[in-house]
Amino acid sequence: MKEFIIEPLSKQFATQVQEKIDNKIKPLGALGRLEEIALQIATIQQTLTPALQKPYVLVFAGDHGIAVERVSAYPQEVTAQMVLSFVRGKAAINVFCQQHHLNLKVIDAGVAADFPKDLPIVHAKIAKGTRNFLYEPAMTQQEMEQAIQTGSELVKEIHKEGCNVVGFGEMGIANTSSASAIMSVITKQPVEVCVGRGTGLNDEQYRHKIEVLRKALLHHQLSSNDPFEVLRIYGGYEIAMMCGAMLQAAALRMLILVDGFISSIAFLIAYKSNPYIRNYAIFCHTSAEQGHLKLLEYMQARPILQLGMRLGEGSACAIAYPVVESAVRFLNEMASFEEAGVSNRQNIESDSCL
Amino acid sequence: MKEFIIEPLSKQFATQVQEKIDNKIKPLGALGRLEEIALQIATIQQTLTPALQKPYVLVFAGDHGIAVERVSAYPQEVTAQMVLSFVRGKAAINVFCQQHHLNLKVIDAGVAADFPKDLPIVHAKIAKGTRNFLYEPAMTQQEMEQAIQTGSELVKEIHKEGCNVVGFGEMGIANTSSASAIMSVITKQPVEVCVGRGTGLNDEQYRHKIEVLRKALLHHQLSSNDPFEVLRIYGGYEIAMMCGAMLQAAALRMLILVDGFISSIAFLIAYKSNPYIRNYAIFCHTSAEQGHLKLLEYMQARPILQLGMRLGEGSACAIAYPVVESAVRFLNEMASFEEAGVSNRQNIESDSCL
Repeated sequence: MKEFIIEPLSKQFATQVQEKIDNKIKPLGALGRLEEIALQIATIQQTLTPALQKPYVLVFAGDHGIAVERVSAYPQEVTAQMVLSFVRGKAAINVFCQQHHLNLKVIDAGVAADFPKDLPIVHAKIAKGTRNFLYEPAMTQQEMEQAIQTGSELVKEIHKEGCNVVGFGEMGIANTSSASAIMSVITKQPVEVCVGRGTGLNDEQYRHKIEVLRKALLHHQLSSNDPFEVLRIYGGYEIAMMCGAMLQAAALRMLILVDGFISSIAFLIAYKSNPYIRNYAIFCHTSAEQGHLKLLEYMQARPILQLGMRLGEGSACAIAYPVVESAVRFLNEMASFEEAGVSNRQNIESDSCL
Repeated sequence: MKEFIIEPLSKQFATQVQEKIDNKIKPLGALGRLEEIALQIATIQQTLTPALQKPYVLVFAGDHGIAVERVSAYPQEVTAQMVLSFVRGKAAINVFCQQHHLNLKVIDAGVAADFPKDLPIVHAKIAKGTRNFLYEPAMTQQEMEQAIQTGSELVKEIHKEGCNVVGFGEMGIANTSSASAIMSVITKQPVEVCVGRGTGLNDEQYRHKIEVLRKALLHHQLSSNDPFEVLRIYGGYEIAMMCGAMLQAAALRMLILVDGFISSIAFLIAYKSNPYIRNYAIFCHTSAEQGHLKLLEYMQARPILQLGMRLGEGSACAIAYPVVESAVRFLNEMASFEEAGVSNRQNIESDSCL
């Protein structure tokens, strides 16, 4: 199994960044979360003038054996159809990437369809969908390791191109079932807390999904503390590949943008295997998918956006991107009190009669 | 007093827009608030292909007589100093407007300083700061009407340039005191619910601010239901001018972007005088200033961002702008199920055995 070495961030350098932030012409702390994001990025990059370079959104697609249990409102072929839509450039993630000039790569991690070899995607299919984890582990140890390795190599490539910030999205019919099972085992929360309506189940379908997951959890009786073992049993190829890609991104001191529920589950596994990755991640939104909020709380994550979205595809990474950019910009471009000749609050406090 | 005629929005047309949204290749409702924003903008513009044109942020600056009561952590001269910083292009709002290609106009509504006539701002000074509302009404009826009229004319001008979306920001030392007093009287909530720490008061200064406002409210004993009378007694020139500008924007079917606490107070007065304006407004964020959250609840507003910001200047309008743009873009650019050849959920529901 590949080992990733992730460095802790320098608290000493963070103090210097904070000083720069506090000297900008604004009341102390008045830019709220933007100040925290600026501090984080400058500390990752170890510079007082950070920059976001060649931003990428990677969308990992994969199919899930559990889909035959009718746990999704959409048929399995939608995974492949959506991959084709991404290539045609007319899906949500295309629109938002175009808006913010983000580079987009779509990766076939394990879609249950044959794509033409000249389709402009990353052809990295592990297999045509995972096995049905209601009866057997979703993948073999070798498949999982291959997925993690492939994700890692993908990130090394874009890093070589000059990329230092990368968003992680996904597409995979039934992958909220996979994610819910992983969450339940790793965070030790009852499955009904971790299960949502995915792409839009009605009440009956929702109860059925919970029942399927309960049975699957009982079947495997997994009590291992090894996050990768949980990933192997319940995970998707796209989740494993994302996880390897995230670990590699942190090892290369890149900024990680986490999308929604599935992306956060890939991050959870990475985080459980190496807690230092937490410093390199920004959580882009709180999804409307039940379970995501609890998962974010579990990781003490405070996402940027709360817009009731639940689309995946990396859409929240793209929509939150300009906010992240705003943080970098104010740090680089705003004047200090001294430069601007603006009176700081000290002036009034020193002669205050209160 | 100028009358503004604001049209209600067509429910019938909204149904057509909703249908277009629901046919995009995504689960129903999966883009959350973006879908609501797209629906709102298309319905305001009465077209299925809306566009944001020549976006402006207007920053209204004014001084407040109440500042002599030491209700702010910063000295009054900071208002004028910040106006000069906006002109030099190095304040927060400049950075964020440059990032998103927003046009910026700074308006001297009533700063207590003389600016050179050739300073590239809108010279619309009503007076050099309002009167101290601890002892007398902040402005005369004539001053208030002049401010409202000037705001209205400003918006007519940018509308003539082709602008159809406008953000409203402000700068004014002590204007959270003015805003808190207005909120307390209009929403009938105790003053301590409406008062926050502004630019950063310590505990003692904060108690003092509450005390000053209590005395001012007792002094005027205002129980009128006329929002403009409340504005006249406690308001600032920048708040009155913003209010007139907002009313004019809605009358011209422009999209209004509301910034933070002060901007929301200007909107509150406009809303109390003409409830239809509500349909034309997007609330950009929930400020960290205490009182803003309650004020938003009072108007049943659900803002786009919750980033713990409390800067004013229109900064939240600028930072939320790309999210608003994302809403317009997905409506115009995403494929429908039919165009993309993607299976919709109906396919599975019709042959579902659940």
